[in-house]
Amino acid sequence: MTDRETGNTIDPKFDANGLLTAVVTDAGTGEVLMLAHMNDVALARTLDSGEAHFWSRSRQKLWKKGESSGNVLRVVEARIDCDQDALWLRCEPAGPACHTGARSCFYRRIENGELVRVR
Amino acid sequence: MTDRETGNTIDPKFDANGLLTAVVTDAGTGEVLMLAHMNDVALARTLDSGEAHFWSRSRQKLWKKGESSGNVLRVVEARIDCDQDALWLRCEPAGPACHTGARSCFYRRIENGELVRVR
Repeated sequence: MTDRETGNTIDPKFDANGLLTAVVTDAGTGEVLMLAHMNDVALARTLDSGEAHFWSRSRQKLWKKGESSGNVLRVVEARIDCDQDALWLRCEPAGPACHTGARSCFYRRIENGELVRVR
Repeated sequence: MTDRETGNTIDPKFDANGLLTAVVTDAGTGEVLMLAHMNDVALARTLDSGEAHFWSRSRQKLWKKGESSGNVLRVVEARIDCDQDALWLRCEPAGPACHTGARSCFYRRIENGELVRVR
């Protein structure tokens, strides 16, 4: 195994577009709220401020979650995976995480070839 | 909002490399176990078999999780996100999910600029 896997040094493995993948869960309920991407600046801002920042691939800009909606994500714990290309943020959400107004972006279950609304 | 966001039709939005991102949690504990990618074949095999299949970007091949280690992931529930480019698989893991032998790939917390082993 490599130092990146076993060590205590933060050494993020950004992809060809300079991004990591970040999964956000609700620190209280454990529910997966959303999945988004971070460049080096978004990662630094998240760790410095304690509030989740991402890189919007569609808008090609840095984005603080909740900057317009107010639904910020306060980071309770940040974990990194074995090869340091993914983050798990355990957060306290100030409101719905999804732009549709749903608490989580994952509001549909796949069942018998169809999508079924969970809530 | 679009049909992709509100409808009941599975209409995955594969990225430029033909991939979705999949996050796996332990259906029992809620812990995030791993994050990986799926092409159309991996998605179909996962839904048909009830066991998680992925696309290995490094090896450029289809991969059934646990095919060599035996540590398969039985899918209890599969959810898809608002824009259908990410999946959340709630699974029963047959053993450690991480190739390092850890239960979860996310075995280190970021704390004061360093990584701290969680378990």
